[in-house]
Amino acid sequence: MPVPAPNLYPSFNVVRLSHVCYTVRDLEASRAFYADTLGLQVTHEDSEMITLRAMEERGHHCLVLRRGETPAVDYLAFKLYGDADLEKAEAFFRAKGLPVEWVERPFQSRTLRTRDIHGVPIEFYVRMDRLPPIHQHYALYKGVKPLRIDHFNVFSTNVDESAAFYSEFGFRVTEYTEDEETGRLWAAWMHRKGGVHDMAFTNGRGPRLHHIAFWVPTPLNIIDLLDLMATTGYVGNIERGPGRHGISNAFFLYVRDPDMHRVEIYCSDYQTVDPDHEPIRWDLKDPQRQTLWGAAAPRSWFEEGSLFADTPVGESVLKATPIVAP
Amino acid sequence: MPVPAPNLYPSFNVVRLSHVCYTVRDLEASRAFYADTLGLQVTHEDSEMITLRAMEERGHHCLVLRRGETPAVDYLAFKLYGDADLEKAEAFFRAKGLPVEWVERPFQSRTLRTRDIHGVPIEFYVRMDRLPPIHQHYALYKGVKPLRIDHFNVFSTNVDESAAFYSEFGFRVTEYTEDEETGRLWAAWMHRKGGVHDMAFTNGRGPRLHHIAFWVPTPLNIIDLLDLMATTGYVGNIERGPGRHGISNAFFLYVRDPDMHRVEIYCSDYQTVDPDHEPIRWDLKDPQRQTLWGAAAPRSWFEEGSLFADTPVGESVLKATPIVAP
Amino acid sequence: MPVPAPNLYPSFNVVRLSHVCYTVRDLEASRAFYADTLGLQVTHEDSEMITLRAMEERGHHCLVLRRGETPAVDYLAFKLYGDADLEKAEAFFRAKGLPVEWVERPFQSRTLRTRDIHGVPIEFYVRMDRLPPIHQHYALYKGVKPLRIDHFNVFSTNVDESAAFYSEFGFRVTEYTEDEETGRLWAAWMHRKGGVHDMAFTNGRGPRLHHIAFWVPTPLNIIDLLDLMATTGYVGNIERGPGRHGISNAFFLYVRDPDMHRVEIYCSDYQTVDPDHEPIRWDLKDPQRQTLWGAAAPRSWFEEGSLFADTPVGESVLKATPIVAP
Amino acid sequence: MPVPAPNLYPSFNVVRLSHVCYTVRDLEASRAFYADTLGLQVTHEDSEMITLRAMEERGHHCLVLRRGETPAVDYLAFKLYGDADLEKAEAFFRAKGLPVEWVERPFQSRTLRTRDIHGVPIEFYVRMDRLPPIHQHYALYKGVKPLRIDHFNVFSTNVDESAAFYSEFGFRVTEYTEDEETGRLWAAWMHRKGGVHDMAFTNGRGPRLHHIAFWVPTPLNIIDLLDLMATTGYVGNIERGPGRHGISNAFFLYVRDPDMHRVEIYCSDYQTVDPDHEPIRWDLKDPQRQTLWGAAAPRSWFEEGSLFADTPVGESVLKATPIVAP
Repeated sequence: MPVPAPNLYPSFNVVRLSHVCYTVRDLEASRAFYADTLGLQVTHEDSEMITLRAMEERGHHCLVLRRGETPAVDYLAFKLYGDADLEKAEAFFRAKGLPVEWVERPFQSRTLRTRDIHGVPIEFYVRMDRLPPIHQHYALYKGVKPLRIDHFNVFSTNVDESAAFYSEFGFRVTEYTEDEETGRLWAAWMHRKGGVHDMAFTNGRGPRLHHIAFWVPTPLNIIDLLDLMATTGYVGNIERGPGRHGISNAFFLYVRDPDMHRVEIYCSDYQTVDPDHEPIRWDLKDPQRQTLWGAAAPRSWFEEGSLFADTPVGESVLKATPIVAP
Repeated sequence: MPVPAPNLYPSFNVVRLSHVCYTVRDLEASRAFYADTLGLQVTHEDSEMITLRAMEERGHHCLVLRRGETPAVDYLAFKLYGDADLEKAEAFFRAKGLPVEWVERPFQSRTLRTRDIHGVPIEFYVRMDRLPPIHQHYALYKGVKPLRIDHFNVFSTNVDESAAFYSEFGFRVTEYTEDEETGRLWAAWMHRKGGVHDMAFTNGRGPRLHHIAFWVPTPLNIIDLLDLMATTGYVGNIERGPGRHGISNAFFLYVRDPDMHRVEIYCSDYQTVDPDHEPIRWDLKDPQRQTLWGAAAPRSWFEEGSLFADTPVGESVLKATPIVAP
Repeated sequence: MPVPAPNLYPSFNVVRLSHVCYTVRDLEASRAFYADTLGLQVTHEDSEMITLRAMEERGHHCLVLRRGETPAVDYLAFKLYGDADLEKAEAFFRAKGLPVEWVERPFQSRTLRTRDIHGVPIEFYVRMDRLPPIHQHYALYKGVKPLRIDHFNVFSTNVDESAAFYSEFGFRVTEYTEDEETGRLWAAWMHRKGGVHDMAFTNGRGPRLHHIAFWVPTPLNIIDLLDLMATTGYVGNIERGPGRHGISNAFFLYVRDPDMHRVEIYCSDYQTVDPDHEPIRWDLKDPQRQTLWGAAAPRSWFEEGSLFADTPVGESVLKATPIVAP
Repeated sequence: MPVPAPNLYPSFNVVRLSHVCYTVRDLEASRAFYADTLGLQVTHEDSEMITLRAMEERGHHCLVLRRGETPAVDYLAFKLYGDADLEKAEAFFRAKGLPVEWVERPFQSRTLRTRDIHGVPIEFYVRMDRLPPIHQHYALYKGVKPLRIDHFNVFSTNVDESAAFYSEFGFRVTEYTEDEETGRLWAAWMHRKGGVHDMAFTNGRGPRLHHIAFWVPTPLNIIDLLDLMATTGYVGNIERGPGRHGISNAFFLYVRDPDMHRVEIYCSDYQTVDPDHEPIRWDLKDPQRQTLWGAAAPRSWFEEGSLFADTPVGESVLKATPIVAP
């Protein structure tokens, strides 16, 4: 098995993925997409920035949109367990020779900014402003009724390296795709919070962000979103789905935001809290790992992704994606 | 508007579509598909024939499977209102110079067999054996939980002619696709029972049967069927969907039976009982008429159909289907 | 069997139930309930009247609210097939010695106003203003996503008489409750449009309106409405449900409007278009006819109803409801 | 706030609730209920014992049924993180003066048996036999499609003491009901695995088990179970629901097994992994905490529970339940 064994005593304690920060060209258009269409709740808004949260989140934001010239992913952020973990994280990244700095982020306690071994800009913090619960304020529920941010998925040029690195601070593999010829990882799904993943890595030109995902209650919410987008000018933003992934068993839909950042809407994964939870292996040649029901994904889904700000992109150590739609 | 006006005083009174009779090569395989997978209930079974009904049907059968060498559609059948309608129907078809004969069909009162103007073999009857209700015997519900047969869809070489003909005995158009260049009908959906259709005609080599459809309670039943078929050896039988049709607004899935007869699983159409219910026009160039959410149908869906027994096939008066998947 | 046999050649042709007219004390409050909470669409509004339709209706209104001092049901209305049916209806009611007058109703062709044998004010018309379809304008869908008005349910002092009377103009019984001791009908469900009912009669002080019902897509829409009402000040308006009726097999919820008019939200009944469709008999002593799952209805549900305007109320020929909640 | 603060550095690490062991009088009847009706999968069966798991579980069992004369709850079991935690747990309970013994349980590594401060028999282990995944074997899904065991709920004579005790080994309160007069806890929901609870305590004669719960995908699965139970002889086993709890926001149903052990079917709670996740306070006088939609629970639900084997029951320090159905 090419995946790292579960690391039960990690270097520092990551609670879960927390939020993403995007540069977008038109805050108005992004607000129409994320708030009015998907249904996220705006928690702060000024001329340069909008922050949003999902319906069951108490933290101030899971999505930060900053106005800018060129669409980009500014960083992916994770919540740590306690202040000691922030110190340990700093030491960990410093010891790896990776860039480390303390940054101020609005509505958060002090924040550690660094990069992973392939250059993905990541940030860690312990406390964020807490907001009153809105999870039973049903008059606010609209769009796809997003309940929480669920995971990040990034293109990695070397998934074996990515998986090994995140394993050092406790991410555990739940499912993975193996390239049988080379014995290398093609893709890996890794979690901290007890679901299928907080972070996934897929082979490809990278680092680039493939997508972020929001968790919704049932497949019918996804069908509602499709109906809404199809009749409000967003039909061209529907990229793939609805469908069932073999991997993760999730019922999914992929849509693109006005800057082409990809969003997955997602429900139905499973609980993985057991430390001896065995990862599931998929063969790269099995098309049902992508879509249990057999339909192919469009070429764009395999090839396109969002650039991280100020981050050079390189080629993968493995060959290009072998399975695309006709 | 190229569609025939609603004919409020038809030549004879058709209550609804009733059943289809297929020739299948392997009764066992067809039983596994229709009964064990889709969930239809077997109401008769012998070495040569299986009959089935859906969960909310009281009539003896909506599907008749007869063993034979070559897959075929033997006939499409409709239920008439009263005995007088059967007489009127005979006179009507005879006056058109179409072949008319009285046939014996098991579990039915005397049955009129004829053909429509393009040769589709159709049968009419008034009474069928009635069976006790099973619609609250929930222990019997399985598969996709099919509630009733919903409609037939046939390839017609001349949809204008088909629509005009069925209009004479009261079928009313609810939605239609117009070829703007020629001003001709590309497709028409026509009903008797108060939904979007009992019978639809689509331009193409014909006559051939495009599909029959079963009505199910909710989209989640269709998702259950996809999961079941994908994991019980039927993934190759999933042809198209799930999706939402622009036309009819139905949530749909298309699957193929072991003889490649196509079955639509269908929910969510609307009530059309008003005699002044206006048909909805769709432009042939509007891809959302096919799939509201934008995904293209596979080529097979546009081109393949089941042959009617002993019925020659001809070319359409209009050109080949202009919109196919890449 | 105490129910009238299906009358296949009725005195005149009723297409379906059409709309109800209520007197309400506070148009603003009623609008908040029917439009903002249930999700019906306002089609006309002035200082004295609001009209509304459901999402799949093309007719101008299924609900008319008129401002007044005292809550009342002004009339129940039905759509007829053609002008000849309107003439036949007038002759029919006149021959019965029932009051007949022609009235002007906004947005409708000329309208026949009369009363049934127990005094229920009913109206018949052929044509109503037709509005453009909105059934795929998903941005408008909210609340419980009501698709169409489904039926009326009235308290009758003599259900045998009511069923026999409506049978004369073609209403057919689909299900009924029999009082075994007396052999009389306790309740009857009668349809014209091919579902379980357009009109139901329940034994009790009458005539009074028990409820009107709206059809919705799935049980999840009803759950959404419960969540919404429970958190927007309407928790006291939730009277009964959600549950499954034995009779009709419908998934139901009963709520009360600001004037205490009762509304059922309803999905999942079945097709009844066959002229030889057999009615289902229920025993008055079987509690599962009320709620398949066994929970009792509250006393208010058995006893309370809306008064028809200017219509005296009398006692039932049968004893009071024998089954109520503890 | 009367609840214990989150204990971020617990005495030992509990991963999650794991399983319950019942004494049942008739293994056949219990099998019909849990396997054939609810849909749990049998993983071992002999003349004295049946073990079962839910569809997404890899551990050998979440439910152990042992044949016996008198219905009882033999123990509630929890999975620990590592072997060191088992040692720490032993020391912890021994230091409290609570009974500690090592027991052999089939299909598990060595198991620590003890009691909590009120006498609830609880067991801890680290490893259980792991079984191959069946979570995509959709042909096996039936009944309510239970995905995993979700929580235990016990009557406690002193909820303040129970909450404080379990907090010592890391259970964190997510929601609680406060008796405003006394300032004491009436009920508390406590978790380890990141949902609303692994363990809940409710004021009452105790210790007794109020219920165990299984997690299902959507409310429609619960409706399916209601339909199935209502038509297969189990209508009397339906005790309460369906409904939405204010507390936990869960969509729920309560049913009773053949020995009257209570089972909750449950979906829709929320993620609670943040160490600074604030508990939600409910007032004992707010009826929406019990049912958001307002319906009262039956008296049996408040008063009845299962006895733990060989465990005396005492009276609560607080008065009897103040809110019951009429």
